[in-house]
Amino acid sequence: MAKKFMDADFLLDSEPAKKLFAAAKDMPIFDWHCHLSPKEIYENRQPEDIAYLWLAGDHYKWRAMRSCGVDEKYITGNATGYEKFRALAEVMPCLIGNPLYHWTHLELQRYFDIYEPLSAKTCDSIWERANAKIKSGGFTPRELIKNSGVTCLCTTDDPADTLEYHVKLAADETFGVKVIPAFRPDKALGIELPGWRDWLAAMEKTAGVRIESWTALTEVLTDRIDYYASLGCRASDHAFGEFPYLRASAAEVELIFSKAAKGEELTDTEIEKFKTELLRFLAKEYAKRGWGMELHIGPMRNNNTAMFNKLGPDAGFDSIDDREVARKLSRFMDSVAQENLLPRTVLFTLNPKDNYVLGSMLGNFQTEEAQSKIQFGSAWWFNDNIDGMREQMKALANLGAISKFVGMVTDSRSFLSYPRHEYFRRILCNLLGDMVENGLYPEDYETLCGIVRDISYNNAVNYFGIEI
Amino acid sequence: MAKKFMDADFLLDSEPAKKLFAAAKDMPIFDWHCHLSPKEIYENRQPEDIAYLWLAGDHYKWRAMRSCGVDEKYITGNATGYEKFRALAEVMPCLIGNPLYHWTHLELQRYFDIYEPLSAKTCDSIWERANAKIKSGGFTPRELIKNSGVTCLCTTDDPADTLEYHVKLAADETFGVKVIPAFRPDKALGIELPGWRDWLAAMEKTAGVRIESWTALTEVLTDRIDYYASLGCRASDHAFGEFPYLRASAAEVELIFSKAAKGEELTDTEIEKFKTELLRFLAKEYAKRGWGMELHIGPMRNNNTAMFNKLGPDAGFDSIDDREVARKLSRFMDSVAQENLLPRTVLFTLNPKDNYVLGSMLGNFQTEEAQSKIQFGSAWWFNDNIDGMREQMKALANLGAISKFVGMVTDSRSFLSYPRHEYFRRILCNLLGDMVENGLYPEDYETLCGIVRDISYNNAVNYFGIEI
Amino acid sequence: MAKKFMDADFLLDSEPAKKLFAAAKDMPIFDWHCHLSPKEIYENRQPEDIAYLWLAGDHYKWRAMRSCGVDEKYITGNATGYEKFRALAEVMPCLIGNPLYHWTHLELQRYFDIYEPLSAKTCDSIWERANAKIKSGGFTPRELIKNSGVTCLCTTDDPADTLEYHVKLAADETFGVKVIPAFRPDKALGIELPGWRDWLAAMEKTAGVRIESWTALTEVLTDRIDYYASLGCRASDHAFGEFPYLRASAAEVELIFSKAAKGEELTDTEIEKFKTELLRFLAKEYAKRGWGMELHIGPMRNNNTAMFNKLGPDAGFDSIDDREVARKLSRFMDSVAQENLLPRTVLFTLNPKDNYVLGSMLGNFQTEEAQSKIQFGSAWWFNDNIDGMREQMKALANLGAISKFVGMVTDSRSFLSYPRHEYFRRILCNLLGDMVENGLYPEDYETLCGIVRDISYNNAVNYFGIEI
Repeated sequence: MAKKFMDADFLLDSEPAKKLFAAAKDMPIFDWHCHLSPKEIYENRQPEDIAYLWLAGDHYKWRAMRSCGVDEKYITGNATGYEKFRALAEVMPCLIGNPLYHWTHLELQRYFDIYEPLSAKTCDSIWERANAKIKSGGFTPRELIKNSGVTCLCTTDDPADTLEYHVKLAADETFGVKVIPAFRPDKALGIELPGWRDWLAAMEKTAGVRIESWTALTEVLTDRIDYYASLGCRASDHAFGEFPYLRASAAEVELIFSKAAKGEELTDTEIEKFKTELLRFLAKEYAKRGWGMELHIGPMRNNNTAMFNKLGPDAGFDSIDDREVARKLSRFMDSVAQENLLPRTVLFTLNPKDNYVLGSMLGNFQTEEAQSKIQFGSAWWFNDNIDGMREQMKALANLGAISKFVGMVTDSRSFLSYPRHEYFRRILCNLLGDMVENGLYPEDYETLCGIVRDISYNNAVNYFGIEI
Repeated sequence: MAKKFMDADFLLDSEPAKKLFAAAKDMPIFDWHCHLSPKEIYENRQPEDIAYLWLAGDHYKWRAMRSCGVDEKYITGNATGYEKFRALAEVMPCLIGNPLYHWTHLELQRYFDIYEPLSAKTCDSIWERANAKIKSGGFTPRELIKNSGVTCLCTTDDPADTLEYHVKLAADETFGVKVIPAFRPDKALGIELPGWRDWLAAMEKTAGVRIESWTALTEVLTDRIDYYASLGCRASDHAFGEFPYLRASAAEVELIFSKAAKGEELTDTEIEKFKTELLRFLAKEYAKRGWGMELHIGPMRNNNTAMFNKLGPDAGFDSIDDREVARKLSRFMDSVAQENLLPRTVLFTLNPKDNYVLGSMLGNFQTEEAQSKIQFGSAWWFNDNIDGMREQMKALANLGAISKFVGMVTDSRSFLSYPRHEYFRRILCNLLGDMVENGLYPEDYETLCGIVRDISYNNAVNYFGIEI
Repeated sequence: MAKKFMDADFLLDSEPAKKLFAAAKDMPIFDWHCHLSPKEIYENRQPEDIAYLWLAGDHYKWRAMRSCGVDEKYITGNATGYEKFRALAEVMPCLIGNPLYHWTHLELQRYFDIYEPLSAKTCDSIWERANAKIKSGGFTPRELIKNSGVTCLCTTDDPADTLEYHVKLAADETFGVKVIPAFRPDKALGIELPGWRDWLAAMEKTAGVRIESWTALTEVLTDRIDYYASLGCRASDHAFGEFPYLRASAAEVELIFSKAAKGEELTDTEIEKFKTELLRFLAKEYAKRGWGMELHIGPMRNNNTAMFNKLGPDAGFDSIDDREVARKLSRFMDSVAQENLLPRTVLFTLNPKDNYVLGSMLGNFQTEEAQSKIQFGSAWWFNDNIDGMREQMKALANLGAISKFVGMVTDSRSFLSYPRHEYFRRILCNLLGDMVENGLYPEDYETLCGIVRDISYNNAVNYFGIEI
């Protein structure tokens, strides 16, 4: 008989899997990479309805709706919240096999106590019950975070950011959840982009100094790293479509900087040299402070110019790039490792073809400094689904020590996305449970439960050195 | 106890899968991409024996036989039909796990009522029974097509083709199956190939005009597109080893055309520019007419020069290419989307490493124009097997809306290949059935049966706008 | 109830799988590619303890220990054998899902009759029992080889090697296992590496001639090939990160040779031309002698310069490269096939993204010369695990004739690694057993048992033409 839809044993196909999930499910959450807004957390506004919570900014849902031929009016257009919610409800049954289908129903179950599937038929009833529930309380950002079991979360912040809301949150003793910044200097590295000089100006304003040279830039960034550290920051983050590695002398990067600062066009070689040397510089600064460095490799962004001009970035028009990554990534890591300044590093790939390239790369740079000093980041964005997560974990298990894995992050803009940790834990427990069920690992539940608890929470806390 | 070999529940591993297949199995077939010969359909000759039906042109079987060390004499050589059939029968048991093994036995079951496995032992008995069955009738091209449940099929035709047999078939009211052309201008784009000027001459002859410029070429092709449309054509098709994208001005392409027309050698840059601009031109013409554009990306053809010189193309010496595809394909689609003239597009990849690249690319260009205006084409050629089809469908489900999938095509030269639709439907129903069985989707059979019927037939009919 | 940990039915999930493994398990082993030392086999020393057997040279274990944060002292440092063994035992439970976990316990079971899992708790007991067992006899290299059922093994030897120990082993009639060299001229092709001139000098010394030209080099190598053949050699082996193909004239390669011999720096183009023409030359020599040519494609070696300077090569700092391979490999094979001198070839890929590229490449060059003259080599190194082996075999089955597969090699430096053949056979039998269990292949055990016996042993013996 078919298993009940998304019940307590959702994704748990064996008795060992169920036992492991029992150990993992109540572990707290350390969400060490997300895109939540510290301002929204600080201001802690009451959301108006489920349409706002689900559809105001979630480009995963927007893409899915576009795939079903929904008019843009009901996606990012001027339709009402109810109309947008109805448009989503109508296409939901078509999303069979899509992780959105599971995320949606996990959120309905966990936050709204609603257990029937969303569809055109149930749309109105769910709309009313969900909104009533929201009105009855528990849906402000802080309540959602806290009630989801989060002890600490890292937002994603530009070096030019003043961290105003992090300062305010740190001073606010009522919340009890640690909200710390993560240092994401993508704009500093984006010297080829039209906005680079604007970023430079913003950075000058925040720092209160002029930045007229490469040297000045590195000094300002070092100061910012120290400032971030003073607010508890333990992690940096970088995103690359194609990973750069082309070395340059200090004189060369000074020259490249001054060309760019004057608005002159750079060659591809100059761009790659600048990125390489700035990333090398930053990596070493991270290493000196014991920070973790996250490298997110593989997105190809803003593919649809017409829609970019209409809606801007992060509106659901990104996909997966497919450039070679092995050699440049290896040479980069080696270059700083030779100076004994390779930081703890988490390698993420958006292209699953590179699971084994990255998974095997880790082993080249492991040392006694940490348990799996080099980490293989969890399946992310287009891979954040049952197959993608299982494949990433199998690659890591085959090639390294999955027991030391720092596990899941939501990587999300939504306050309702914490059930993705539950989704991850179920998939993890099912994978390890399968091994036990099939005689590939002994039924040693003390060890096994320790492993799933570590991957769910403890490893990440230890890896990033967070005090909770 | 082991399941019976290829019985009614072949590939259906759960009760939900069986229920879904019951809904899908009797849906008609719209085979929107195949390589059947309209001439053979029109002439409708009685085949002499099963060796002719199976071995006269099927390079899948030829390759499999070569892999088993069979002498070329028994493959494409001068051995008798019986000798070739025997050679195939002898190696058949060695093809465990190969889709040919299943296709062969599906064809024996469905067309010949033969249920035992083909081998050296059963060779003579099957040879006699199959040939007797052929003699007893039902094996002409039209009978095979009609009895397989086909309502419409699209052949693959060069712009220089006169479509003589399509005209004749359209005039013949006795058949009852729609046979329409698909527009495949690969030879027009193949400016780097020795045969391009011959193609140009053939095109001039068919069109009855001189083609002495790029402009003239685009005019002739536009006329041909209209002529194809007048015969019911709704789809074009293009194949690329490496996808081109390098923009050029009108003046540049005129210059490239004139160099090529004179037989001068072109640079790689010129070749890529010509292909890019011609494809862009054509894509926009397709968009204007609401046609679907199929892009088949990834074959590396004619790898064995000695055998090419002996047997020509399509003799089983092709394999999978591995070039980067993400950036150029994205820029191409964006370039015509910016003019609001991106047609409905079906992206096929021959290299399974690109399943997630293409599967995520779709989402960049979906609009309300159609339900999944951009489609991820079914697993094809070297991927047309249980694993390949399942992986393609999982990628599509994870990344988009599989419910809107236009489904299977035979892509075949054989009149016996329709059971591949059954193979596909079984794999589809098993995948969705697994989800229900495992509690990943509710047991809502009304919705589920609708989904598998749509993917089996309705979606493609609607997508291409076929009137049946 | 969960299956017992690694019992007799380890990895065998169906009754058909068990029946097939019963047929395969006692087949002898022909280990046609390994890195065992002929000197150690000849000298046949008694090992001191299990730390020596397991940890003296096994960079798989070293990597795994580093991944768990073990101090290098306990890996390659000056800790005692017991201390290193304890460090391994402590991290062993963390290696859930890693093939090392299974290899370790297969070795404990098969060689030591120890059936409990290795961990901190069992460390001392296992240390004592294993060492007592070693002392009691049966653990010299020759005993381990012979008792593992090996009839023949091919070591991996440089052309400059004198093969002194092969000569001695051939003269020694007491052993009864055939130990033959395989020809691995990587150093001859490595013209871009600092050691190339040293290799040339060593080659001159071994051959007793001066090598002052490309022509002289090819003559010496031809002589060495004949010498290797005189000692029973039937196989060559080549490894490439990126596969080279760029043609050059004889005059060009003479020039490149003389530049390199003088120590002048070569351009990338010159390096690729030299490699291409030398590989082409060698391939044709192999073809003339009926040798098999193994091409191992995809490693990226010595990524960690600091550790390379400390420990040298093969210490666990290699990973997977990701260059394009399809076109160059195809053109290379075609170039010698056009001269009718493409040898039997085994294509190995380290990057699983290329499974379908290589698996489909085979079919381009199959002839009646052999049953699957072009082979797809088994999953290797980072893919030598349950998933990797299953994926390689599924690709081969889908694309070719798995029945003709030459199967497993240990590719190992360890005398205890033969259970990897058992691991492979279990995975093979489980895969084929699954097909029978699911009705995808008839329950014809005569044929099926023949297939698994062939893949386990007979195919390789026939393919390489070994007389045993």
